[in-house]
Amino acid sequence: MDVSWESSVTDSINTIYLLFSAYLVFVMQLGFAMLCAGSVRAKNAMNIMLTNVVDAVVGSISYYLFGFAFAFGGSSNPFIGTSYFALASIPDGTYDYSFFLYQWAFAIAVAGITSGSVAERTQFTTYLIFSFFLTGFVYPIVAHWVWSSSGWLSPSSSNLLFGSGAIDFAGSGVVHMVGAVAGLWGSFIEGPRVGRFDAFGKPVPMRGHNATLVVLGTFLLWFGWFGFNPGSFDKILVSYPSTSDQGNWTAIGRTAVTTTLAGSTAGIVTLFGRRLIVGHWDALDVCNGLLGGFVAVTSGCSVVEPWAAIVCGFVSAWILIGLNVLALQLQFDDPLEATQLHGGCGAWGLIFTGLFAKEEFVIQAYDSGESGVTRPYGLFLGGGWGLLGSQVVELLSIVAWVTITMGPLFYALHKLRILRISVEEEVAGLDISSHGGYAYAAHPEENQPRFYAEYMRLQSNYS
Amino acid sequence: MDVSWESSVTDSINTIYLLFSAYLVFVMQLGFAMLCAGSVRAKNAMNIMLTNVVDAVVGSISYYLFGFAFAFGGSSNPFIGTSYFALASIPDGTYDYSFFLYQWAFAIAVAGITSGSVAERTQFTTYLIFSFFLTGFVYPIVAHWVWSSSGWLSPSSSNLLFGSGAIDFAGSGVVHMVGAVAGLWGSFIEGPRVGRFDAFGKPVPMRGHNATLVVLGTFLLWFGWFGFNPGSFDKILVSYPSTSDQGNWTAIGRTAVTTTLAGSTAGIVTLFGRRLIVGHWDALDVCNGLLGGFVAVTSGCSVVEPWAAIVCGFVSAWILIGLNVLALQLQFDDPLEATQLHGGCGAWGLIFTGLFAKEEFVIQAYDSGESGVTRPYGLFLGGGWGLLGSQVVELLSIVAWVTITMGPLFYALHKLRILRISVEEEVAGLDISSHGGYAYAAHPEENQPRFYAEYMRLQSNYS
Amino acid sequence: MDVSWESSVTDSINTIYLLFSAYLVFVMQLGFAMLCAGSVRAKNAMNIMLTNVVDAVVGSISYYLFGFAFAFGGSSNPFIGTSYFALASIPDGTYDYSFFLYQWAFAIAVAGITSGSVAERTQFTTYLIFSFFLTGFVYPIVAHWVWSSSGWLSPSSSNLLFGSGAIDFAGSGVVHMVGAVAGLWGSFIEGPRVGRFDAFGKPVPMRGHNATLVVLGTFLLWFGWFGFNPGSFDKILVSYPSTSDQGNWTAIGRTAVTTTLAGSTAGIVTLFGRRLIVGHWDALDVCNGLLGGFVAVTSGCSVVEPWAAIVCGFVSAWILIGLNVLALQLQFDDPLEATQLHGGCGAWGLIFTGLFAKEEFVIQAYDSGESGVTRPYGLFLGGGWGLLGSQVVELLSIVAWVTITMGPLFYALHKLRILRISVEEEVAGLDISSHGGYAYAAHPEENQPRFYAEYMRLQSNYS
Repeated sequence: MDVSWESSVTDSINTIYLLFSAYLVFVMQLGFAMLCAGSVRAKNAMNIMLTNVVDAVVGSISYYLFGFAFAFGGSSNPFIGTSYFALASIPDGTYDYSFFLYQWAFAIAVAGITSGSVAERTQFTTYLIFSFFLTGFVYPIVAHWVWSSSGWLSPSSSNLLFGSGAIDFAGSGVVHMVGAVAGLWGSFIEGPRVGRFDAFGKPVPMRGHNATLVVLGTFLLWFGWFGFNPGSFDKILVSYPSTSDQGNWTAIGRTAVTTTLAGSTAGIVTLFGRRLIVGHWDALDVCNGLLGGFVAVTSGCSVVEPWAAIVCGFVSAWILIGLNVLALQLQFDDPLEATQLHGGCGAWGLIFTGLFAKEEFVIQAYDSGESGVTRPYGLFLGGGWGLLGSQVVELLSIVAWVTITMGPLFYALHKLRILRISVEEEVAGLDISSHGGYAYAAHPEENQPRFYAEYMRLQSNYS
Repeated sequence: MDVSWESSVTDSINTIYLLFSAYLVFVMQLGFAMLCAGSVRAKNAMNIMLTNVVDAVVGSISYYLFGFAFAFGGSSNPFIGTSYFALASIPDGTYDYSFFLYQWAFAIAVAGITSGSVAERTQFTTYLIFSFFLTGFVYPIVAHWVWSSSGWLSPSSSNLLFGSGAIDFAGSGVVHMVGAVAGLWGSFIEGPRVGRFDAFGKPVPMRGHNATLVVLGTFLLWFGWFGFNPGSFDKILVSYPSTSDQGNWTAIGRTAVTTTLAGSTAGIVTLFGRRLIVGHWDALDVCNGLLGGFVAVTSGCSVVEPWAAIVCGFVSAWILIGLNVLALQLQFDDPLEATQLHGGCGAWGLIFTGLFAKEEFVIQAYDSGESGVTRPYGLFLGGGWGLLGSQVVELLSIVAWVTITMGPLFYALHKLRILRISVEEEVAGLDISSHGGYAYAAHPEENQPRFYAEYMRLQSNYS
Repeated sequence: MDVSWESSVTDSINTIYLLFSAYLVFVMQLGFAMLCAGSVRAKNAMNIMLTNVVDAVVGSISYYLFGFAFAFGGSSNPFIGTSYFALASIPDGTYDYSFFLYQWAFAIAVAGITSGSVAERTQFTTYLIFSFFLTGFVYPIVAHWVWSSSGWLSPSSSNLLFGSGAIDFAGSGVVHMVGAVAGLWGSFIEGPRVGRFDAFGKPVPMRGHNATLVVLGTFLLWFGWFGFNPGSFDKILVSYPSTSDQGNWTAIGRTAVTTTLAGSTAGIVTLFGRRLIVGHWDALDVCNGLLGGFVAVTSGCSVVEPWAAIVCGFVSAWILIGLNVLALQLQFDDPLEATQLHGGCGAWGLIFTGLFAKEEFVIQAYDSGESGVTRPYGLFLGGGWGLLGSQVVELLSIVAWVTITMGPLFYALHKLRILRISVEEEVAGLDISSHGGYAYAAHPEENQPRFYAEYMRLQSNYS
C-alpha cells in the first residue's frame, strides 16, 4: 500500500465520473437536435439537424485548437486564457484529457441554443460563420471569466469580486445566456418568419411538425442534464472535513435532486398555468417549462436546498410564460423560444443563486467543505449582498459581451445580405433549397396495401 | 492512509454506481413514452406522451414530499414508513441523496405501465388523479413491504416471513405487477376502445401508428434495464468473504447477463412462436416478448444462474402469447398489452424466483455472501418451500392491495362519469380534443418539390 | 487495511468502468436500427429494424453458448478458443461476467453492418441463417486471432507476429471489416435493388424515408462509440510506472478525444467535399462521413496523438467519398454504404495505425506503460515495418477468412433461391409481404381537424 496507489485510485474514480458525465452532456446535443427538428416545420428539419451536427463537428476542432485554450489556458490574465492550444502539454497535473472532453461537450451545446432562435430562415453558410465565432471565441471567454481560477468573476480566484465571485455552477449564464443573447440578436435582426404575424400583427400559429421528436428531445436533455449539473463537480472523491462521512458524493446526489425538482416544478406549473391560460393541456409547453426549470437551476444546483429548487422552478415557469406572451406582443419570433427559455430562465437562475445559496453548500462546492471558511451566500438566507452583486455583474457582463461581439457580426451579415434566405426559399423550405431534398421521402407504392394484395393475387393466378 | 479515506473511496464508488444506474432507469421513462406513443394511433400520441411526462414531473414532487417517506421511512412499522418526508434528515448515514434519486426513477415508472392499459380513452384530468394516488401512495407502500428492512415481506428484516421473506430484487412484483393490476382494473372498468371489437365480438386490428417508435422505445427500455436490475444492488463495493476475489461486482455482472439472456430468449421464442401462429415475422411482438422476458427476470435476476434465466424467458414468452389470446377472447382491450406483459410475466417472475433461486447467490445478494448462513432458496434446487411460499404471498398481497385501493377509485371515477372520454372525443382523438392539436403537423407546401422547382425557375426568369 | 480491500476496490472500479462502457456499446445497436430504418424506404423499415432486434436476441444466446468460447476460450490454439462454453467456469480470475457482457455488445453489432448491405431485398429466414453463422462463428474466430492473448495476430501474445502483432484496439478490422466484407459478398451476389440503376446503368436516387432517424442513429452511434473505443481498455485502474501520475485513466480520456477528433474531421471534410461535388450541404453525407471517421480511428484510437486522429479522419472522408463514386460506377448497390464505410474506412484504419502509432502509447496500451520495453510502432514515426506489416496481414486475413466462409454461404443460398425476395415482394416492400404490415399506420380521421370541428359543433347543437 503506497501513496501512488491511492493517487491512482483517486484519478480512476474521478475520471470515470467525469468521462461518463461528459458522455451524458454529449447526449444533450442529440436532445437539442431532436427538440429543434420537431419544433420546426418538416421542410426545415434537415437544415436544423445539420446545424446541430455541424456545431458538434466544427466545435470539436475549434475547441481543440483554441477554444479550450481561451477558456482554461493557465495564465494570470483574468480575461482570456493563453495556453493549451491544440492540447499542448495536456495532461499536466492540472488538467487531463477527460476535463477537456467534459468542457468540449459544453462548448458544442452553446451554438445549438442560438440555432433555435434563428431557425427556418438563416443561410447555412452564414450559420457556419457565426456558429464558429460563437463556439470558438465568444463562449470560451465567458467560460474563462467564471470557471477558470484566474477569471475575474471566478468564485475560486485569489481575488474574489465583492469577496465572493459569481456562482454559476454549471452555466445558467455561461452557457445558456450566452447562447440566448446571441440568438436574441440574430432573431431580432432577421425578423420573424414569413407569415408568423398577419397584416394586423396578430400571431399565426406555426406548429412544429412532430411532437414526438419534441418529447424525445426533452427527455434526452433531462438525461443529459444529469451530466451537466452534477457532473460539474468534476471530481467525486473529495471529502468534507467538517462533516461525518460526507463529501462531493453527497453534494453530487443533492445536485441531481435539486435539478430534478426544479425542472419538475416548472413542468407542473406550466401544465396548470397554460391550462388556465389557453384552455387545454399542452404537452409541448410542459416540455419547454421543464427545460426552463433546468436552465434556471443550473447556476445554483449545487448550493441550494431541495426546497429552494422548487421555488426556483416555480418562478422560472412564470418567467417563461410571461416572456412568451411578451414576445408575441413585440412580434419577436424565436421558433424554439430559445431566447425566452435560455435567456429569461438563465438570468433568473443567476439571481436565484444570489438569493438562496446556502453557506454550508457554497463552502462545500468551492472550498471542499473546509471548516473555518466564511463567504457571502444567499441574500434571503442572511448571506449579504456580495454574492447577489456578483451574480448581477455576471448577468450584465454576459449581456454586454455577447451583444458587442455577436450584435455587430449579425448586423454586418445582415447588411451584406447573407444572413437571411430569400422569401422564395423560405416558402419552399431550406431542405429543398440548400440541402438537396426533404427529410422525409414518401414512396407511393407503400400507401397501397389493397393494391398490393390485388397485385399479388393476380400475380399468383398468372404463375 | 486512514480509515476516513477508505470510507470516502467506498462512498464515491458506490455513489457513482448508484447514480449512473439511476440515470439509466430514468431513460426507461423515455423508453415508455416512445413505446406507448408508437403503439397508439397518431391522434392520441400527444396525450400518451404527456401522461409519461406528467408521471415524471408530478412523481418527482410527490415522491420527494411523501412517497419516499412511505417507502423507506425508518420505523418499526412493517406496513408504511413514517420519516424522511421532504428528505428531512437526509443524508443520515443510512440513505444519501443518490438512493433517493434511484428510488425516484423507479417510482415514476409505475404509472407509465398503467397509462398504457387505459390509453386512448381516458380523461386527462382523471389520469392526473389516479396517477398521483398510485405513485404517491399505493406503490410506496408495496415498496416498503418488500424493500424496506422493516417491511413484513422483506428478505432482510429481523423477522423473515417463512424464515425467508420474498425475493423481488428489482421489482417484478413491486413495480410491474403494481402498475399492471392498476391497469387491469382501469382498463376493465373503462371497457374496450370504440371499434376494437365488432358487433360479433371479433377483434378489429387497431395498429399503432409508428413501429419505429416501438423499436426505439424497446431498445431504450433494454438500455434502462441495465440500471434497473444490476443497479438494484445499490452498492458495488461489497466483497464476499467466502469466495476468492468475488463481490457485488461479480454478481452485478451476472445480473446484467441473466437479464440479457431472459429477454433475448423470450424475444426469440416470441419470434418463432408468433411466426407459427400468425404466419409472419412480427417485429412488434418480438419487442413485447423481449420486454416480457425482462419483466419476468426482474425478480430473480440477481439470484439465478444464466441457464435458469433462459428458462425464465422461455416460459414468459408463452405466458404473454397465451394471455394475449385470452384477452382477445374475453374482449379485454389493453392497448399496450401492459396487463398481460407486466402483470402476467411479473407474476411468473415471482414464482420463477421461488423455483430457481440458487442458495449461494441468495446469500450473496441478501447477506453479503457471509459464510455459515443458510436460507430457503429455489424449490427446484432443493431449497424448500419457504421462499416459494413468500413469493406467492407477495403475489397475492400485491393483487389484493392494488385491487382494494385502485379498484374502488376507478369505479368511483367511472360512476362520476369522469373516467372515460365521450365517443366523439375518442373518434376524434384526445390530441385534438384535450391537447390543442395533433402531434404531427403537415405543411402543404412541403409536398410539392416539383411545384417549387417550377416556381424557382419562373422566379429566376423574372429577376 | 488489507490487500483484499485493495483488490475489491480495484475490481469495483474496473467493473463499473467496463459495465457502463458495455451499456454504451449496446446503445449502438439502437443507433444502427435507427440509422438503417431511416436510410431505407418506409416499406422496409419494419424489416430492417427486426433484423437489428434479432441480431441482438439471437446473438445473445449464440454468444453465450459458444461465441464467447470461440473468441476468448483459454487455450494454446491460436486459431480458435475452446473453453467457456455457456460461461462454464466464469468467473475464473481471468474473466468475469462484465467482460462477457462487454464482448457480447460487440458481437451483436457485427451482423448489423451486414444487414445494411443486403437491406430491402433479402429473405428474412435467410437473414436469420447467415446472421447466426456470422455472429456465432465467423466473427468470434477473428476476435480470437487479434484480441485473445493466444491469437496468432495478438499484440499481447508470447509469440508476436513480426515482433509486433496487429494493433486493432477496438476493431476497425475485427468488427467493422468483418461485417463489411460479409456485406460486400451478400450485396454483390444479390445485386442492386429493383430500379436502383436505369436501363442505361445510370443510378436512380432511392432516398431513405426519414432523415431524422438517420441523425438520431448517428448521434446514438457517436454516444455508443465512447463505450466502444475508450471502453476497450477494459480496466481503468492501471498506472504507468514510467510516468508521474498517469495511467489508463489518461489514455482513456485521450482515446475519447482521438475518437471525437477523427469523426469530427471526417464530418467537416465530407460537408465541404460534398458541397463542392454535389452542390448542396448534405446532412446525410455528413452523418456517414462522421461514422467513417469513427470506424477508421477505432483501430488506432488508443495509440495515436490527437493531431494524428485529425489526419485519420481527413483521409477517411475522401476514401468514403471515393468509394461511393466507385460503387455507383460499378453499379454496386449497398443501401447503407456499409461496405464502403465499414470496409473502406476500416481498412484505412488498420493501415493508419501502422503509420501513426506512437511508441509510448503502444507500450501504455499493451504493456501497461512498463519502462524499458521496446516494440515496433508507426512507420511514419520511425517505428519500422513490423507493425505496418502486421496490420496488412490482419487486413488480408480478414478479407480472406470472411470471403471463404461467407462467400460460399451467400452463393449457396443464392443458388437455392432463398437469398433474395421476388420482384413483386420487393416492389411491395418486405413489411407487407413478410412482417404483417407497414411500420406506419395512417388513420384517416386524424387528418381531418376541420371535419372534426364541424362534427363537434353539430354534436353540441344536437345535445
